[in-house]
Amino acid sequence: MSLEQMVYTRPNKDRINLNPLQTGGILTPEARKVLVEFGDGYSVCDYCNGRLDQIDEPPIRKFVYDQLPKFLGSDIARITGGARDGIFAVLHAITKPGDTIIVDGNKHYSTYVAAERAGLNIIQVPNSGHPEFKINVRDYEKLIKEHKPAVILLTYPDGSYGNLPDARTLGEIALRNNVPYIVNGAYAVGRMPIDMNSLGADFIIGSGHKSMASSGPIGVVGMKKKWEEKVLRVSSCYKSKELEALGCTARGASIMTMMASFPYVRKRVADWKKQVEKARWFSEEMEKLGIIQLGEKPHNHDLMFFEAPGLFEASQTHKRGRFFLYDELQKNNIWGIKPGLTKQFKISTFSASKEELEKVLGVFKEILKK
Amino acid sequence: MSLEQMVYTRPNKDRINLNPLQTGGILTPEARKVLVEFGDGYSVCDYCNGRLDQIDEPPIRKFVYDQLPKFLGSDIARITGGARDGIFAVLHAITKPGDTIIVDGNKHYSTYVAAERAGLNIIQVPNSGHPEFKINVRDYEKLIKEHKPAVILLTYPDGSYGNLPDARTLGEIALRNNVPYIVNGAYAVGRMPIDMNSLGADFIIGSGHKSMASSGPIGVVGMKKKWEEKVLRVSSCYKSKELEALGCTARGASIMTMMASFPYVRKRVADWKKQVEKARWFSEEMEKLGIIQLGEKPHNHDLMFFEAPGLFEASQTHKRGRFFLYDELQKNNIWGIKPGLTKQFKISTFSASKEELEKVLGVFKEILKK
Repeated sequence: MSLEQMVYTRPNKDRINLNPLQTGGILTPEARKVLVEFGDGYSVCDYCNGRLDQIDEPPIRKFVYDQLPKFLGSDIARITGGARDGIFAVLHAITKPGDTIIVDGNKHYSTYVAAERAGLNIIQVPNSGHPEFKINVRDYEKLIKEHKPAVILLTYPDGSYGNLPDARTLGEIALRNNVPYIVNGAYAVGRMPIDMNSLGADFIIGSGHKSMASSGPIGVVGMKKKWEEKVLRVSSCYKSKELEALGCTARGASIMTMMASFPYVRKRVADWKKQVEKARWFSEEMEKLGIIQLGEKPHNHDLMFFEAPGLFEASQTHKRGRFFLYDELQKNNIWGIKPGLTKQFKISTFSASKEELEKVLGVFKEILKK
Repeated sequence: MSLEQMVYTRPNKDRINLNPLQTGGILTPEARKVLVEFGDGYSVCDYCNGRLDQIDEPPIRKFVYDQLPKFLGSDIARITGGARDGIFAVLHAITKPGDTIIVDGNKHYSTYVAAERAGLNIIQVPNSGHPEFKINVRDYEKLIKEHKPAVILLTYPDGSYGNLPDARTLGEIALRNNVPYIVNGAYAVGRMPIDMNSLGADFIIGSGHKSMASSGPIGVVGMKKKWEEKVLRVSSCYKSKELEALGCTARGASIMTMMASFPYVRKRVADWKKQVEKARWFSEEMEKLGIIQLGEKPHNHDLMFFEAPGLFEASQTHKRGRFFLYDELQKNNIWGIKPGLTKQFKISTFSASKEELEKVLGVFKEILKK
C-alpha cells in the first residue's frame, strides 16, 4: 500500500448537511486553523506544569475555570473525552455497583452503556408513545420513591425526537427527594441556552463534537461545587491528577478546536430563537408535502423525526428500492439521511440556511411528484 | 473577545524537537491532510452502521481487524481514548475493587491513577536506583507469590529513563504463575518492533499521540483471544456496543490521522536499529561534554535521562538562573527541555536528524564553554 493511498477524502464534507450527529460539530474557520497548528500529538503540553486544565499558554485554564462554568451555568466545569465519558465519570464517582439509576426512555444508548459499565440497575421512565413520544418528568417521582435511585438522568433534548422535557420541574423533584440529578445536554450545550443551576441539576453534560463545533472526541461536564470532593478526587500519590480524568482528558486538536470555536458557539446560542423558527417553518413545509413530523409540536429544537408514507410507498416500486431517496438527495448535494431510510428519518435544520432548506424541500417535492 | 483572537498559534511547532512526549506524535504530511478533511465532529460516522470499528469507508474495519493486530502481534485489537484509557478499560474489565496489581517502579503516573480509579491495591517492584534505575523482572515472582495479584503490568520502556526491561522473561513468569500480564508500550508501539504474543503478554497498550504520529487523544490495545469475552463484553441491550469502549472511542481526526500515518509508522518501526544507533551516538557525545546519561547503558531507546552538573553549576550564577538553559536552546530553535531544568532532564532523539542533533550538541558545548 503506498503512502499516497492513505490520504483519505470525505466527499460529503461540503454538502448541505442534515445529519443530526454532524450539524453542530462542523468546525468554524478559526477551529480549522488551530486544528493544523495543534494537530501534532501532545501539542498543547508545550507549557504544561502537570495539569492540562491549568495550562496558561494556550489559555486552557481561562477556558475551563472561567468561561466554561459561566457558559454551563455550573459552579465548576471540566473537559472530558466525550459526553458519554462524562456520564460514566460521574456515575463511577458517585454510585456503587448494584445501585439503581432512573433515566428517561428517550435516553441515548451511551447513557445505558455507561450505567451498565458502572454496574448499575437501570430503570426507565417510558415516553408517551406515537406521535409525540414525550417524557412526563412527573413520572420520575413515583419511581424515585419506589427504587431509591443513587442518581437520576434526563436527556435534554433526546437524540431521536428532539423533545425538550420539563428539566426544571425534574430539578424540583430531585431536590425534594434528595437525589443527584444529571442533565445530558449533548444536543443542547453549544446549540441553545442552557443553565445547569437554574434547572436545579447537579451535573450537566455536553458534547464538543456533537454541538460545540469541535473536532472530537471531546465533551464537557459542569457540576455543583458540592460534588467536587467526590467527582474530582485526586490520586493519593499524584496530588494534581484527578482520578476520573485519569490525569488528563482531551488534549491537542480537540481542546484547541473547542476553544477556537467557543466565541462563535456562544454567539450562536444567543441566536437560538431563529433556529427554532427555522425548524418550525421547515416542519410545516414538510407536512404540506405529507411528511409528518413526530415528537413535540410546535417543535422546540432543530432535531426532528419525520414519517414519510409517500416516500416509503415510492420505494416499493423504485428500481433502487429503499436506497432511492439517498441517491436522489446525493444527486442534489444533500447529505444526512441514512442510506436505505424512506419511511422514517431524522433531520437537523441546524447548519443549513433557509435557502438551503428551501432547496431540500424542493427536492422532496420533486421526488413525491414522480 | 474577537473571533480573530481565538486563532492560537504554536511557535514551537517547527523547532528541533527533543521532548519525549512529542517526538513520536508529530504528524506525517498524509495525516495533516486527513486532519483537515476529517476535522469536523463525527466526520467518520458518514457510513457508520452502528459500530465505529466496523466502518468500511473510510476503511477503519480493515485497520482495526487486520492491520493493527498484525502490527501489535496480538490476536485482537481495539482503538481506545489513549494509553491510560486502555489500561483502565482492561483493569476495570478483569479485576474487582480491592484486588491487587503489581507494577514496575518506573511506571507512568497514569498507570497508578488508572489502578486507583479501578479501586486496586498497588504493589511496586522497585528499580535498582542510581545510575541505571533498572527493573529486574525476576523481582515480580516473589511479590506475585506473596500478594496473589489479579494482574501484573510492565512499562516497556518506561518514560523516565527509557529502559527496556526483560519483558519476555516476565511473560514466562506470568504464565508460570497464571496471572494476566499487561505490557504498557506507550513508548514502544509505533517506534520500535514489539510483538505481544512473542513477549508472552495478555495485553499490549499503545499511544497514538505519543508514538504513532497521530493527533490525540487516541490509543490502541491488543489482547489475546481468551480475553475477548470479558474485556470486549457488549451491552445487554445494545448488542453491537462494547461496554468498556462506551460504544465508540476515538472518532474523527484522531482515528483518521492514525490510519493516515500508519504506513509510515510501520516503516519507521522497521528502521528502529538506526534510531538506537543515533541515540547511543548522541549519548556518547553528551558524555564527552560531561553530561551523564543515566538509565541502561549502552542505551536501547531514543528516550534518555541526562544529569548535567556543569549546567546546574552555571545556572547558579547566571542572571536568568535556572531558566538560562531553556533560553539558550530557544534562541537556537531547539525545543523540548522543560523551562527551569538544568541539573537533570530528559531528551528524545527520535524525531531529530543526526545533523540536527549535531547542532544541539554544538549548543551544549557553547553553553558549557561560557
